[in-house]
Amino acid sequence: MTGWVVIAGLGPGAEALVTPEVSDALAQATDIVGYIPYVRRVTPRPGLTLHESDNRVELDRARHALEMAQGGKSVVVVSSGDPGVFAMAAAVFEAVEAEPAFAALDIRVLPGITAMLAAAARAGAPLGHDFCAINLSDNLKPWALIEKRLRLAAEGDFAMGFYNPRSASRPEGFVRTLAVLHETCEPERVVIFARAVSTAEEAIRVVALKDATPDMADMRTVVLVGSSRTRVIPRDGAPFVYTPRFTPA
Amino acid sequence: MTGWVVIAGLGPGAEALVTPEVSDALAQATDIVGYIPYVRRVTPRPGLTLHESDNRVELDRARHALEMAQGGKSVVVVSSGDPGVFAMAAAVFEAVEAEPAFAALDIRVLPGITAMLAAAARAGAPLGHDFCAINLSDNLKPWALIEKRLRLAAEGDFAMGFYNPRSASRPEGFVRTLAVLHETCEPERVVIFARAVSTAEEAIRVVALKDATPDMADMRTVVLVGSSRTRVIPRDGAPFVYTPRFTPA
Repeated sequence: MTGWVVIAGLGPGAEALVTPEVSDALAQATDIVGYIPYVRRVTPRPGLTLHESDNRVELDRARHALEMAQGGKSVVVVSSGDPGVFAMAAAVFEAVEAEPAFAALDIRVLPGITAMLAAAARAGAPLGHDFCAINLSDNLKPWALIEKRLRLAAEGDFAMGFYNPRSASRPEGFVRTLAVLHETCEPERVVIFARAVSTAEEAIRVVALKDATPDMADMRTVVLVGSSRTRVIPRDGAPFVYTPRFTPA
Repeated sequence: MTGWVVIAGLGPGAEALVTPEVSDALAQATDIVGYIPYVRRVTPRPGLTLHESDNRVELDRARHALEMAQGGKSVVVVSSGDPGVFAMAAAVFEAVEAEPAFAALDIRVLPGITAMLAAAARAGAPLGHDFCAINLSDNLKPWALIEKRLRLAAEGDFAMGFYNPRSASRPEGFVRTLAVLHETCEPERVVIFARAVSTAEEAIRVVALKDATPDMADMRTVVLVGSSRTRVIPRDGAPFVYTPRFTPA
């Protein structure tokens, strides 16, 4: 029996956003590995072992999955969103690089709907032009690099998507982010706070930068910032927000 | 009868990458609107009218969809990949802004797997850290803006995903792009050419920047460029490419 590891993206929350490719992999798996809330999205069945792990043990979790595959298991590492965007795929390949024998395994990454793009779809098309994705957590990189990237993204007039904007333990990062945006963008710049997109707790808030406050974000929020050309179309209910395709010379 | 417009992402090509949400919208539609090859991905059935249009008529196509919804039709505008990423969603909202009566319509965007993330998944996790998405076509923006963004993205050491790298009619843009990368990145920087991902014609090529040539890209290719920290894990067959989550101070 030949084992394999699939790193699969479950999307932002709704089952209707899980691709058939991912559903098929889950149906073929012998073992599911992942952070507790993501593993709990998988329906238990006979012959399937669920391995729940805590947050911040990504490398241990990756090694566990790879070792089970070496032993002949069919393992799906579940990730929210897209596994390649600030999620489990990089952690698995870090574990592979550290232990060359793992590189011979059958390892595949199955894409999913990442939170930034699900949030953009709910708001309209705010990322309809060039954009950057930045993880605001300074757990794994220095704040100076985050700030540098924010300033360069603003200078390039990219739209931006922010992951992990504000943890309970380190809320000051998003305060600093807003301060950088105030220095580099005009007060009317469009900011979208998209919380728990596609779940029952979904909440989308569209504000001007001058009205954005740190408490509008938490770890279940992605924040989108328009470019200088992003437009808001008012209407009954939430406005449509989009970034035009055309930029004049 | 109340009409609606859904702008739906069909993903990069494979049916297994179409979300159930999009499949449901297609099943409920009375009319499908889109660029010829995308409309042809929808299975004909009684009661469903397929409206194929040529490329570069996005605004006409958007207005047509919105007018049909005003007349009570259930319209799906099909896009490849994700409709919010260099695709049809921005065009629809441009048409809405130009004609305020359209803003009262039921308009929803359904996300899809965008080519950049499908390509990244095939290669490993090259976008596992902060990244930028840049459309290299200068049809709708000046080349100077593209070049500025390339230089800022390189300065910020973002990974990059390029859409529309090289059209048959204007192949010189990608020559210039490689020239900017040669000025701003080291010769060993990882470049991935991902053509027609998830289709029968899929081809993934991983090269060092010094070995990248313009003919490696065409309009069916997305190009991914790693950050300075992106790693290549050699193995039998295609290597794994990933960008580590951790960046030291």
